[in-house]
Amino acid sequence: MLKLFHTPGTCALASRIALEDAGADYEIVRVDFSPQQQRSPDYLEINPKGRVPALVTDRGVLTETPAILAYIAQAFPAANPAPLEDPFAFAELQAFNAYISSTVHVNHAHGPRGSRWAGKQSSFDDMKRKVPETMAAAMDLIEFNMFEGPWVMGETYTVADAYLFTVARWLEGDGVDIDALPRIKDHMARMSMRESVRCALAEPT
Amino acid sequence: MLKLFHTPGTCALASRIALEDAGADYEIVRVDFSPQQQRSPDYLEINPKGRVPALVTDRGVLTETPAILAYIAQAFPAANPAPLEDPFAFAELQAFNAYISSTVHVNHAHGPRGSRWAGKQSSFDDMKRKVPETMAAAMDLIEFNMFEGPWVMGETYTVADAYLFTVARWLEGDGVDIDALPRIKDHMARMSMRESVRCALAEPT
Repeated sequence: MLKLFHTPGTCALASRIALEDAGADYEIVRVDFSPQQQRSPDYLEINPKGRVPALVTDRGVLTETPAILAYIAQAFPAANPAPLEDPFAFAELQAFNAYISSTVHVNHAHGPRGSRWAGKQSSFDDMKRKVPETMAAAMDLIEFNMFEGPWVMGETYTVADAYLFTVARWLEGDGVDIDALPRIKDHMARMSMRESVRCALAEPT
Repeated sequence: MLKLFHTPGTCALASRIALEDAGADYEIVRVDFSPQQQRSPDYLEINPKGRVPALVTDRGVLTETPAILAYIAQAFPAANPAPLEDPFAFAELQAFNAYISSTVHVNHAHGPRGSRWAGKQSSFDDMKRKVPETMAAAMDLIEFNMFEGPWVMGETYTVADAYLFTVARWLEGDGVDIDALPRIKDHMARMSMRESVRCALAEPT
């Protein structure tokens, strides 16, 4: 059975939504950041990166949200369609997820996690101040250039929708005016009504 | 014909190596960062992100190195084998490329491009000072946990090798001791001897 190591509020939500969409038989394990459980020897044994998500499969452990989402899409194609036979269309889906991972998520992380990239409190404060601007710019690009509508990739719901929803939930806390992003706002509202999303947002037991 | 928008010294090298490996019929267009050509209206028309690489295909433009590499692997499977039919193995390849993109490249960028994430010179200096540490930590994880050997994914050369080589070339400038990373150092030496790599490193005409 698949096992997802997950922390509420993190990007691991995207993988959880995709697993719910897939109707996958999976177990969820909560990793608690407050006692730095992600840095415990037991967890580092599972994921030496000390991050979430990590998806344990019968073949081994997968990390990195874009890779996990592509895996779920490929393993459960009925529920998470991806144009695997069309290199260009598949690359477009991957490019969207790569942008979220390497730009949007990174911009966001400069708020709470500046110590990853600098040493001084004044730098952390400076980074935190810039988050509303960098997040708004990245989301503008999605709103006006990348989002096809009604779903991220167009007519068909894909794993990219789970990933966009996950990071869009950070916007309010990041000081971004969601009203300036009407397509993303509407997408969030439609995502929130999906059964898979409601289940994925429930506290793991 | 494929057209790769490329700037020497950047991560666009990985895509260029993969195209050379593929024996692809492609044209290379140099984007010059010094007059900020990547921010010119003409280039933003091609890639609104204002970054390289961008790969123009007959279907449209692709961006994000992990997506471009997966596209090349899928479009030229003989030269760039990828386990496309095996969701787990393909996800492992993707996870490697996602780690380079969202962690290794991001750590590196805090040296020359701190202004993406902060506003003050003191923060840029602070970020720059931490680059040797963050790059060494990320490359240690590759050296000791992720690199299968003799190639990144094991016995078979893949597009991930082109990506690792591309970022390993930054290590000296980033203040990382490559002698502490013997497997990556050996990989660099073997990559440097490949004809595709020599061609990709040649000045575009």
